[in-house]
Parts: sequence; C-alpha cells; structure tokens
Amino acid sequence: MKDIAKELGVSVVTISKVLRDHPDISDETRERVLKYVKKVDYQPNILARGLVTGRSYLVGLIVPDLLHPFFAEIAKSLSREIGVKGYSLIIASSDEDPEVEAREIRQLQARHLDALVIASCALNNTSIDQLALHSNPYVLIDRNFSKVKSNFVGTDDEAAGRIATEHLIQMGCRRIAHISGRSNSTGHGRLKGYQAALQSHGLRYREEYVVSRPHVDADSIEQGKQAMQMLLERKVRPDGVFCYNDPLAIGAMEKIFEEGLSVPNDIAVIGCGNLHYDSSLRVPLSSIDQQNVNIGRRAGEVVLEIIESKVPKPPQKIVFEPALVARLSTLRNSANHSENPKRKSKK
Amino acid sequence: MKDIAKELGVSVVTISKVLRDHPDISDETRERVLKYVKKVDYQPNILARGLVTGRSYLVGLIVPDLLHPFFAEIAKSLSREIGVKGYSLIIASSDEDPEVEAREIRQLQARHLDALVIASCALNNTSIDQLALHSNPYVLIDRNFSKVKSNFVGTDDEAAGRIATEHLIQMGCRRIAHISGRSNSTGHGRLKGYQAALQSHGLRYREEYVVSRPHVDADSIEQGKQAMQMLLERKVRPDGVFCYNDPLAIGAMEKIFEEGLSVPNDIAVIGCGNLHYDSSLRVPLSSIDQQNVNIGRRAGEVVLEIIESKVPKPPQKIVFEPALVARLSTLRNSANHSENPKRKSKK
Repeated sequence: MKDIAKELGVSVVTISKVLRDHPDISDETRERVLKYVKKVDYQPNILARGLVTGRSYLVGLIVPDLLHPFFAEIAKSLSREIGVKGYSLIIASSDEDPEVEAREIRQLQARHLDALVIASCALNNTSIDQLALHSNPYVLIDRNFSKVKSNFVGTDDEAAGRIATEHLIQMGCRRIAHISGRSNSTGHGRLKGYQAALQSHGLRYREEYVVSRPHVDADSIEQGKQAMQMLLERKVRPDGVFCYNDPLAIGAMEKIFEEGLSVPNDIAVIGCGNLHYDSSLRVPLSSIDQQNVNIGRRAGEVVLEIIESKVPKPPQKIVFEPALVARLSTLRNSANHSENPKRKSKK
Repeated sequence: MKDIAKELGVSVVTISKVLRDHPDISDETRERVLKYVKKVDYQPNILARGLVTGRSYLVGLIVPDLLHPFFAEIAKSLSREIGVKGYSLIIASSDEDPEVEAREIRQLQARHLDALVIASCALNNTSIDQLALHSNPYVLIDRNFSKVKSNFVGTDDEAAGRIATEHLIQMGCRRIAHISGRSNSTGHGRLKGYQAALQSHGLRYREEYVVSRPHVDADSIEQGKQAMQMLLERKVRPDGVFCYNDPLAIGAMEKIFEEGLSVPNDIAVIGCGNLHYDSSLRVPLSSIDQQNVNIGRRAGEVVLEIIESKVPKPPQKIVFEPALVARLSTLRNSANHSENPKRKSKK
C-alpha cells in the first residue's frame, strides 16, 4: 500500500479508504487509485484489511456431510454469495455426530470468524447455546431450534411432509409408511406433516409404519435399505413410503427391488430434497424440492447483512415453501382409476 | 493464556511451549498444563498461535465444482486429514472457468494460507505459474502439469482410459466411441489410454467417434446428452462409449434411452470416477474407480508434511492405480459368446 501511495502522491490512509469504499474521498481520487490498483493487479492483503476493519473475512460452514448433495449444493451457493464480497468459506463436517460438531464449533470460533453458518446435527440446544455464548454472529440453516432466538434459513418441513404424504394418497396408496429423520426440527416437522396428511384424509396413523435409523445424512443409502427391510417385515406390507430424504429413498427402493417387488406399483416411494441425480435413477425418484440453492444464497445474504450492519440486527427467520416434483417412483397404475381418497377413507 | 499461567504458577512461555509440543518442557509440567487446559476447555486462539508459529492454520482447496461428488469426496477426506492437526479447509469453486480460478487463487493467496490444494481447470500453465511465484506451498490434485515441478496426487489417467476401453472390447464392442474430457492431463491421459487399447486390439481409431463438449465437470449430465446426440448422428452408430467421467456417462445413457435404444445391448456405456450413486441408476453404471478418498487423504498428508517440515521438501508425485468396477451398463449378452477379441480383430 505504501508503494501505491508514494507512486500516486496520496497518503496510505487515502488508499485504505478507497479500498474500503469510504465516502470521505473525492470521485477523482477514488478513480485514480482504483485505476492504478487494477493496473498493478494489487490484491489488498486480507489480514491487513482485517486489522483495519476488525474482520477476518472468513465465514464458517458446518454441515453433517459434504458428500450429501443437499449440503454440497448449499455450500456452493453460499460460497458464491459471500465470495463476491471477498469473504471465503471454511467448511467442516460433523459426520452427523454432535460431539464432532461441538469440537468443530470450538475450533472455528477460535478463528474469529465473521459468522458461522450451521446445519446442526445436535438433538438438543447444547451446541447452539455454546454458539450464543460467543459474540460472533451465526445463522442456522435447515435445522432450527425452537427455544433459541437466532437467524434461520430453511424449509417448511411440516409442509414438506404433508405434500409428500398427500401425493402418495392421491396416487392411491392407503398403507403409507414413513422412514423418519432424527429427533430434530426437520425430522419432527416432516413426521408431523405426514401424520397431519393421514389424519385429514381419514387414514389411521400406525406406529409400526414409522421406522428410524441412527443415521440419516451419512451412509444413508445403507440406512434406507435397513429401514425398508424393517417395513417389509410388518404383517401387512405398506403400499407407499415417504422417506425423510432422497438418499434414504434410494436405499429403500434398492431393498424393494432386491425383494423382487416393483416401484411404484407394489410400493410407491417419495423422498425429500430433490437431488440432482433423482431423474437418472433406476426408477426416477419423486421428491420434495426444498429450494436448497436458495437456502445457500439467502444464508449468504443474511451473513453479509449481519457482518456489514453497523447496528445489531434482530434475528431473521426465512422459510422457503417446498414443492412436489412427481416422477415415476409414485406414478401408480391404480392412481388413474382410484376413487377420491377422501371419500374412500370414510368406509 | 495469562490466566492459566497465573493459576498454575508457570510462565506464559511455558504454556505456549506445552501447546506447541516443544521438547524443552518437563513431563510433569506438560502433564499439569494439559490437564488444566483440558479442565477449563481452553481453545488456544489460533490467531495468537499463528503469531508464534507464523502459520494461518488454513489450507485452501480450489475445485471445478463442489457439487460433482468426485470433488466433494476429495474435499471431505482432505478436510478430515488436516482437521486432526488443527488445520481448517477454505474452499472455492472455479466453476470450470480458468478466469474464475485465477481470481480465486489471488484471493486465497492474499490470505497467507499455509498451503493450497488445487484441481485446476486451466488448459495451460498460467494459473500454476502464478502459484509458483508465491512462496506458499501448493499441491496439484487430479490434474497435473507436465512442465511444472510440483507436488501432485492423482490417478494414472492413461491406465484409466485403457482399462475402460479394454473392458468394452472384452464385452464384445467393436465400434467404441469416446466422450472426451478437456485438453488437460486427465483429458489427454484418458484419450491416450483409449487410443492405446484400440490399437493393441487391432481396432481402428476413428476421429469421428471422439466428441467433446466445452464443459465436463459443471452441468455435465446435459453435456453428456449433447455429446451422445452427436455420436448417434454418425453414419454407423457406435456400440460402446467410454465417457471421461460418470456424470457425462449418465447424460449419455439418458440420450440413449430417449432414442428408444438399450444400454448395454445397443450401446454399452462406461464412465470414470465410480461415484457413490452409480449402482442406483436406471442401468447401474460401470466405471473406473480412481480412489478419490485416497486422493484427498494423501493430498492432506502431503500438505501436512510440507507445512511441518523444517527444510524444503522436493516435490512428490503420488499416482494411484485405477480399477475397473463392472456393472450392468456394460454387461452385454454378446459378451458371453463372443470370440476372443484379440483374435477377432485380426480379420
């Protein structure tokens, strides 16, 4: 910076102000400095800039598993959103283990991040309380914690569960099972939506049709197979399954095929997340679109607003509406000829 | 640190030495400090530790697209490897655009990373020369640059192309096409392996059977469809296709299905990368395993060796052997009854 100042005959403070977009600089000086900076391809040293602004220009992201395309897509759009403003993304994976998550939070907090974005795998508030103890801002994505006042960007999970289950009912399914998520806001919300849809169509909620596995985001195809195995052992086989996410649904379908049964006519399957390879699967998978690109983008916007705001901002909740994406895995022959499910259910 | 020193009646320097694992400390003191630090859950401030060691404890990773599971898997295993030692991973995506890549390199270099890991999308040495200008160590992954002396961790791409093409020949294919990568080490290597396999089995190399698209890592299912469309317009249709990567192969298969043709009997398809959803596809995809988890892990090991070595280390090249993973997409009926392809090709 000194060299540039000398070359242009202005002070280092002036250069610094131009680079920070400070209003206290004439247009003529600003233009002259920026032109020169561009010419010499000057990259302001971020550490030096940080000493002036008190920022690290680092944003953290903790997700359960980066290989799960849902989180990879969020990471990609979040990184792009904050990258435009010179912020970089540090990523960490919790491997869906709350203890690993707590350790990653501590490690990242020691770095003086400007903000932390987290899709928490915790089932209680401990991790989030730990976050709140620090003054660093944070944004919850995907998974919310009702008792915590914080920024949140995610999906209406109850609506996701309701839409998926109602679609199965409309396709003629009557014994609808649910491979559930964990005991967090997304797991609870989708289960609640599933139950509400059954009830509003006069179908009985049967506990034995709801199965869960210890992991849902890591190693989830295998977990989905195991869960489907449990459902196939029920006295009366379900004719439709709503799965907490798409990888679980892929596993469930594989187990159904292994047993020589067909999707969708023996058992219709719908997932949640609308992952990019859903339409290339053995039977293209119906799913619920959660607008994951928008979740990443909006989380980035919230992060930038918080960091760049001069005054503390009240927490924002941004909840996207999910939407049905119907593919072959739920397109049953019976659907075309079935009675109105509402009427039928009154029997 | 001051508080801990006061509490234990030792100097701040002693505490700092214990935390840096310095040999100049008695076992008794070390144990006492570590026990206390653990009790109070003390997280050494990484910035402060950086002032002592001169490190940022940050490692950068630039990949063409984080949504491509090949790179997500590498990011995951790399992050895990360096995380154990307290290093965090900053990620950036080049969107397969050399200009974006050059910008990301400049941005990350301004952060004083301890090392940069890059799967470069550049087709010439410009980006890498820029890297070499800085004293920060870097490690190339997946894509190598022959004129540059640098650390590299990747796959033997020529072997990958050869194995894939020989497998198609063994399955009875005689008109084998190639949807190629870009003009970089991976693209060249796999093309070379494809040509070598054809030649060693006496099959003619036909230029019209090699097609390429501007992108191969971003938006690649669509790119694969377009490339397959081009191949289907050839006077004589190919009966086998080796695709540069799995997402291209998925697109190619979709185009084949759209045309009412079958995989593998009309056209056998093999990809490269062995992505985690390959076996769940409409026709499970044969592929070449590149050991991507090992690439990430070994890149992490090389990074740690470079950072923690007291003396500059000569560049290392670590090249993993690829392996065939045969699934339904190449299992042709004709294969069981076909003559030995080597003999047949002598006609």
